[in-house]
Amino acid sequence: MARQPTLEFWYEFASTYSYLAAARIEGLAATAGVAVRWRPFLLGPIFASQGWTSSPFNLYPAKGRNMWRDMEREAARCGLPPVRRPDPFPQNSLSATRAAILGQDQDWLVPFSKAVFESCFAHGRSIAEPAAVVEILNGLGLDGTQQLKAAASEANKTKLRVVGEEARSRGIYGAPTFLTDDGELFWGNDRLEQALAWAAGERPGDMR
Amino acid sequence: MARQPTLEFWYEFASTYSYLAAARIEGLAATAGVAVRWRPFLLGPIFASQGWTSSPFNLYPAKGRNMWRDMEREAARCGLPPVRRPDPFPQNSLSATRAAILGQDQDWLVPFSKAVFESCFAHGRSIAEPAAVVEILNGLGLDGTQQLKAAASEANKTKLRVVGEEARSRGIYGAPTFLTDDGELFWGNDRLEQALAWAAGERPGDMR
Repeated sequence: MARQPTLEFWYEFASTYSYLAAARIEGLAATAGVAVRWRPFLLGPIFASQGWTSSPFNLYPAKGRNMWRDMEREAARCGLPPVRRPDPFPQNSLSATRAAILGQDQDWLVPFSKAVFESCFAHGRSIAEPAAVVEILNGLGLDGTQQLKAAASEANKTKLRVVGEEARSRGIYGAPTFLTDDGELFWGNDRLEQALAWAAGERPGDMR
Repeated sequence: MARQPTLEFWYEFASTYSYLAAARIEGLAATAGVAVRWRPFLLGPIFASQGWTSSPFNLYPAKGRNMWRDMEREAARCGLPPVRRPDPFPQNSLSATRAAILGQDQDWLVPFSKAVFESCFAHGRSIAEPAAVVEILNGLGLDGTQQLKAAASEANKTKLRVVGEEARSRGIYGAPTFLTDDGELFWGNDRLEQALAWAAGERPGDMR
């Protein structure tokens, strides 16, 4: 029996379009017959290495204004609740991402990640404080305080750094990013359908 | 009888995704029952005001590498010939844009614009030299030399500057950009379908 193809879904909790992709990917992947590997990472260090001290949506105000309007339209199109803006934007996602890295091989990674995104962009809540992350973990029936303590261990912090290096070395420059088994990179929520089709073995037009 | 809705299509000749939009927009707009107003403009001054001295695809190499790969995939998906990269990228589009501004209310604007894009991205030719623009104009049965001379007049250069100010004042920060009669702004070739639907009176989800 052929192994089921896998699509890696690289996401950043502070990223608006990662939120949309997280809300859409499970249903679309099931239809496409593709397994999804959720890969939390921090985009901040990659932006910093490009000389950006904040989100490009803050650095370039016209771009930022249209991004929020586009999020309103896209959320409506996807049947999601109206988008709320966390204050400040982008949120510091370090604690949440450390927790997600700890949960990388745990069955709570996906529900945790979706809960963080919803808290941030459907409710406009802060996800920056460790207490907010503890509350989300508790809501999943975990011992949030204990998990966040483990997430702050040197071993887990090292894992997060290694993941960041992996992101950079595989050509990731934004979020969300989708990577197929054969290393094809698709950037942005707008490419989720094409990434899944590629993962499932389809090729566009004359690339067959 | 209701007036046919119009979508303004703002494009930059040096822009890869403007090329894709230019190749797609006529068919999709006809299906949607929307008229298209082609709006050539120069993106360079807007990028410069954001502190960018070149295309972000050059400034951020990982982003640039994936853009070219994405163009290969998207061109194949749209049934276009393999994308060729003009050297250098981006091309200086001043002469071609001046000519397009001269042709703003002429019936040759659309065939001229499509011919410039095809020369640049289907054939990888330079469009920077006035001679290249003259040749394209000649190919449309015009007196290219005469047209380019008129395009370099002070009156036409002023028109181009005014268009640039209009772009900025209406919130344009990239290309292609689509603007509806009611001022809704959609950025990027990936939003062409949504822009046409909006222009035709559709609203996504609960924005009705």
